[in-house]
Amino acid sequence: MRKIVIGVMGGGSTSAADTADAYELGRLIARQGWVLLSGGRHAGIMDAAAKGAAENGGLTIGILPDETGADLSPHIQIPVLTGMGSARNVINVLTSNVVVACSGGAGTVSEIALALKHNRPVVLMNFDTGGIFEPWRASGRLRAAASPSAAIRKITELLSH
Amino acid sequence: MRKIVIGVMGGGSTSAADTADAYELGRLIARQGWVLLSGGRHAGIMDAAAKGAAENGGLTIGILPDETGADLSPHIQIPVLTGMGSARNVINVLTSNVVVACSGGAGTVSEIALALKHNRPVVLMNFDTGGIFEPWRASGRLRAAASPSAAIRKITELLSH
Amino acid sequence: MRKIVIGVMGGGSTSAADTADAYELGRLIARQGWVLLSGGRHAGIMDAAAKGAAENGGLTIGILPDETGADLSPHIQIPVLTGMGSARNVINVLTSNVVVACSGGAGTVSEIALALKHNRPVVLMNFDTGGIFEPWRASGRLRAAASPSAAIRKITELLSH
Amino acid sequence: MRKIVIGVMGGGSTSAADTADAYELGRLIARQGWVLLSGGRHAGIMDAAAKGAAENGGLTIGILPDETGADLSPHIQIPVLTGMGSARNVINVLTSNVVVACSGGAGTVSEIALALKHNRPVVLMNFDTGGIFEPWRASGRLRAAASPSAAIRKITELLSH
Repeated sequence: MRKIVIGVMGGGSTSAADTADAYELGRLIARQGWVLLSGGRHAGIMDAAAKGAAENGGLTIGILPDETGADLSPHIQIPVLTGMGSARNVINVLTSNVVVACSGGAGTVSEIALALKHNRPVVLMNFDTGGIFEPWRASGRLRAAASPSAAIRKITELLSH
Repeated sequence: MRKIVIGVMGGGSTSAADTADAYELGRLIARQGWVLLSGGRHAGIMDAAAKGAAENGGLTIGILPDETGADLSPHIQIPVLTGMGSARNVINVLTSNVVVACSGGAGTVSEIALALKHNRPVVLMNFDTGGIFEPWRASGRLRAAASPSAAIRKITELLSH
Repeated sequence: MRKIVIGVMGGGSTSAADTADAYELGRLIARQGWVLLSGGRHAGIMDAAAKGAAENGGLTIGILPDETGADLSPHIQIPVLTGMGSARNVINVLTSNVVVACSGGAGTVSEIALALKHNRPVVLMNFDTGGIFEPWRASGRLRAAASPSAAIRKITELLSH
Repeated sequence: MRKIVIGVMGGGSTSAADTADAYELGRLIARQGWVLLSGGRHAGIMDAAAKGAAENGGLTIGILPDETGADLSPHIQIPVLTGMGSARNVINVLTSNVVVACSGGAGTVSEIALALKHNRPVVLMNFDTGGIFEPWRASGRLRAAASPSAAIRKITELLSH
């Protein structure tokens, strides 16, 4: 009954290549029957991933920072309106069985850190965070993937643990 | 694409009659094609409403106060884990197109008040809150219903405004 | 070392009489050596109570709903910026040893309800909430006061429990 | 009237040297007349910094993750109880005029990231975060200090901007 939720995090403004990868990742998440969770805004990685999932039969949920969904992605089916600003980043990661972090800024880094703190595994898709999260890489809770299909394999491994 | 979300709020321990009504309300919400939102715990009104929806083909989302879903209703398909205690009450009401408040205690009263403050309409189903919310009753933002089918009629009216 | 914190809640637009009472309540709270907590905005009850405390040697803390303190009362010495909207109401009441609720709207009612849910005692100062909170009145956790000096007596009783 | 608040973040278990530095930092913050803000728990950096400030005439405020202050540092004068878990990290940084990050784990990294996202300047005191925050280092919003006295100089510079 309980569905598997995969969170896809990343910046609000991204390169064309990262956007295309996020769309493909969303498509593959939908094909697995997983729910796609994002930050819900109509921008960057979060919008592309939601679009990839929604256009391919997936269910999409967005955790919005504002009270009204003013900047809601048109590809989100269930907008969760928090009115809590960046505190919604905590909800993003707690709700996800696995978090995929794509290229992003400080907000995305905060989500990786919060995920690891709360024992949610993280897949970095083409996002180099330097050495700061090395202890989690060593323990296998943080893994890297160079493509959407590789990210799906890593998610699958992490879900089976 | 964007789904309509109906929040059903109420106490964690309730009478058999209120529980049966909450189940029936959940069933009718599912039949309308609306998403059923609750506080997500395995208790009282929130569990009964989720059960009524999930057993009748509906989609159920629960906004949990804790980080792990320790007390998660088995009838919730998408648990949103907040780790924020009663602050999740704000999310419950902001996310709902209409809030139905069933018999409950102080937590339920806080949700009615927060909903009205943020312009989410409220249907009271067999829950007498006295005169305190009279201004919203007068404006039509707060309506009363004596049965699940009456609650569905009130929700439908409020959604069409 | 740990200071006693008294939260004063109430509406953003209030009558001259209620504003004067809130100022006097703030003054008396400062004279007791208690910290005055409010919602921190430059409006209504919260501003008047902070002014009464700060102008009479008290320490004032405001729990703001926004990220920047755009509407900060000039009488708040320590603004706690939450960026969490109404979720900060939960912090208001959890942080207060006793909550005084003055005349207000739905936001104030939500704070009374949240306080009672989390076992923080409440004094209603000239605020009639009807019968909805009757169980807590019967248990002594909710008390009424008709003046600032009466409110101080009720707070003192509640602190000694 | 409005006081300057300096947040000191860091791990719950730390080396003796880092603990001694955090105490000294707290002492120097108090001597400047600034309010010391920490995560409020009775552990590691946050406890040591609060102790250093409180034992030297400073005012200390702790933003607690739980509802009751079960693990409250005895050196916190004003405990702000949030009941919001890691979402309180957002409040820590929004409320601080400058954030000092000492040695810590994922929670501390999340606070650095959230501070930078919300334009709160950060001083790293003996905490190497690798290259991940390089853009903010280049812009001067993130600065490094190798001792408590150096941290005070960096804070002073950042406050004057």
